[in-house]
Amino acid sequence: MKTYKIALLPGDGIGRDVTEAAWAVLEKTAASSGFSLEATRYPWSCDYYLENGSMMPADGIETLRSFDAILLGAVGWPSKVPDSVSLHGLLLPIRKAFVQYANIRPHKLLPGVQGPLRSQDFDILCIRENTEGEYSGAGGRVHQGTDSEVAVETSIFTRKGVERILRFGFEQARVRRGKLASVTKSNAQKYSMVFWDEITHKLSAEYPDIEVTSYHIDAIAARMVMAPDSLDVVVASNLFGDILTDLGAAIQGGLGFAASANINPDRQAPSMFEPVHGSAPDIAHLGIANPIAAIWSGAMMLEHLGETAAAGRVMAAIETTTARGIGAIPGKDKTDAITASVLSVLG
Amino acid sequence: MKTYKIALLPGDGIGRDVTEAAWAVLEKTAASSGFSLEATRYPWSCDYYLENGSMMPADGIETLRSFDAILLGAVGWPSKVPDSVSLHGLLLPIRKAFVQYANIRPHKLLPGVQGPLRSQDFDILCIRENTEGEYSGAGGRVHQGTDSEVAVETSIFTRKGVERILRFGFEQARVRRGKLASVTKSNAQKYSMVFWDEITHKLSAEYPDIEVTSYHIDAIAARMVMAPDSLDVVVASNLFGDILTDLGAAIQGGLGFAASANINPDRQAPSMFEPVHGSAPDIAHLGIANPIAAIWSGAMMLEHLGETAAAGRVMAAIETTTARGIGAIPGKDKTDAITASVLSVLG
Ligand SMILES: CC(C)[C@H](C(=O)O)[C@@H](O)C(=O)O
Ligand SMILES: CC(C)[C@H](C(=O)O)[C@@H](O)C(=O)O
Repeated sequence: MKTYKIALLPGDGIGRDVTEAAWAVLEKTAASSGFSLEATRYPWSCDYYLENGSMMPADGIETLRSFDAILLGAVGWPSKVPDSVSLHGLLLPIRKAFVQYANIRPHKLLPGVQGPLRSQDFDILCIRENTEGEYSGAGGRVHQGTDSEVAVETSIFTRKGVERILRFGFEQARVRRGKLASVTKSNAQKYSMVFWDEITHKLSAEYPDIEVTSYHIDAIAARMVMAPDSLDVVVASNLFGDILTDLGAAIQGGLGFAASANINPDRQAPSMFEPVHGSAPDIAHLGIANPIAAIWSGAMMLEHLGETAAAGRVMAAIETTTARGIGAIPGKDKTDAITASVLSVLG
Repeated sequence: MKTYKIALLPGDGIGRDVTEAAWAVLEKTAASSGFSLEATRYPWSCDYYLENGSMMPADGIETLRSFDAILLGAVGWPSKVPDSVSLHGLLLPIRKAFVQYANIRPHKLLPGVQGPLRSQDFDILCIRENTEGEYSGAGGRVHQGTDSEVAVETSIFTRKGVERILRFGFEQARVRRGKLASVTKSNAQKYSMVFWDEITHKLSAEYPDIEVTSYHIDAIAARMVMAPDSLDVVVASNLFGDILTDLGAAIQGGLGFAASANINPDRQAPSMFEPVHGSAPDIAHLGIANPIAAIWSGAMMLEHLGETAAAGRVMAAIETTTARGIGAIPGKDKTDAITASVLSVLG
């Protein structure tokens, strides 16, 4: 029997609650689908930092490298460790080290879920560049603490980095509805974003079957609210993708429903699957976090591992559950009740 | 009789259509309010660029400096002149030269206008930093055209720049509902945005009466859609404010309803008033652009000039017009019909 080795990183706060829920669903699915999943849990988190002075051990990345995939809960607990430390010590280094350059986030309404928009009709796939751009981490501060202090933060875009994420976007558009929205702000950022636009333009010649439109980030943010059905695949930089996918989560009813995959498309290193939501310290360990985003992320993991039928079964179980009204209304059902429902639908 | 000297910059596309509409309303209001407005029109635009090789004359900024205020339509016509040239040649230099560091944009629903959200209940004032940050224009490209090309774009934040916009935000919150949302992305941008957070924290001690909350840009974008009534005054950097105000325009029913003011709070140079929408070349000069955003921006100009009662009359005339269903549904009424209605309500 095929066995997949999965690194489980529950992380902080509700990350722990929802990762165990997702894991229960994945194990049950595997058992009845003819493959097995083997978990190794790592307690890397803000608590780990308080004890050890780092978010993960020095060989953390090397430890993770041997796995088939990583399932992550959430990272961060600002009152224990500043986000700028915790995220740069765990989540962001993994995305970068394993060249998980495509962060994929699907936005559509699950049955029974009511979003905040009048319009309920959309099916958007956001693809976010995940390794460089506005989150390169390059910058500094001078004259610190004085009236003349200046802080700079430099966005770095490489041709290789931009080209590969755009290509990934074109390929996704090809297996969906053939429309690609490329997001920039080239009217105000004339180095980085003009560069992105030029590469989009160049690649579009190679994909004559794809209808490409360039949007400014402000305009497409408005469009996601006013005409979300006009969008198919959206490809954006690290920051712009970050913003658009929270907006996507909002129109799909909330962060409890937003799944994501950090993909290394060349499969030279493990990919990582995580709900879009954060660790939500205020509701941690109360048993009330919605595990649907984490379970959906788990389904994306199965899909990535090639277990397409099993991934489909998980999605169907989620959809049956929310269609019955369970987990469909933020705050109504407990983590356990939602998980139990998904498990029982799985049979 | 008090006379205000106004520079009219209709600019490009529908900017021309809506500026004349707004001007008609402002002149009529002035005539019955005991002051007068004197317009000087400047044709600076993409057409001007094609003839003269620049978006405005070399002494353009000096020419504008002597006015009491500037009323601008919209700048840009990408098929004639790249946005990265036109905007950096006219709109952005004015904002910077006249230290119009506070870009103010009100977001609420006009009567009779149906927004895309189920929830109709919000009244948000966005304040966008308007002179530095992500739109500083600093950057460059190396190895251009080769596989190893790298583009960098540097955001520059000064203590003076951040402090003054935050202070402006605190003051606005004081005359509104006492709540200030400060927007960053300090978990991923650890130089610029941590700096912004520190200054927010420092200033909050001076404003103990104001309830301050720091939001990440992704989280507040989602919040504007899911719980817009939870926000009062929102203060953000140049880019983040740009995105949030298009989103604000979306939830208020579209760009045809979104007004803005580029304010020099120290009044050492003229302030500039402009609708948030762009030049919309596709519908230019068809007589179908909605002039409401431009007229509302004109009301903000009167307010800034100290003509509060006259500003109130313009707003009341807009509200009566949309409450009657005129101009309330995007695309339904012609520019002239909407303007005529506002004029007739003014009496
Ligand atoms: C926590 C934060 C650094 C992270 C990001 O911006 O990448 C999160 O917002 C996300 O969207 O995955
Ligand atoms: C046209 C563009 C440069 C401008 C900006 O981003 O400042 C516009 O989007 C705005 O919001 O005023």
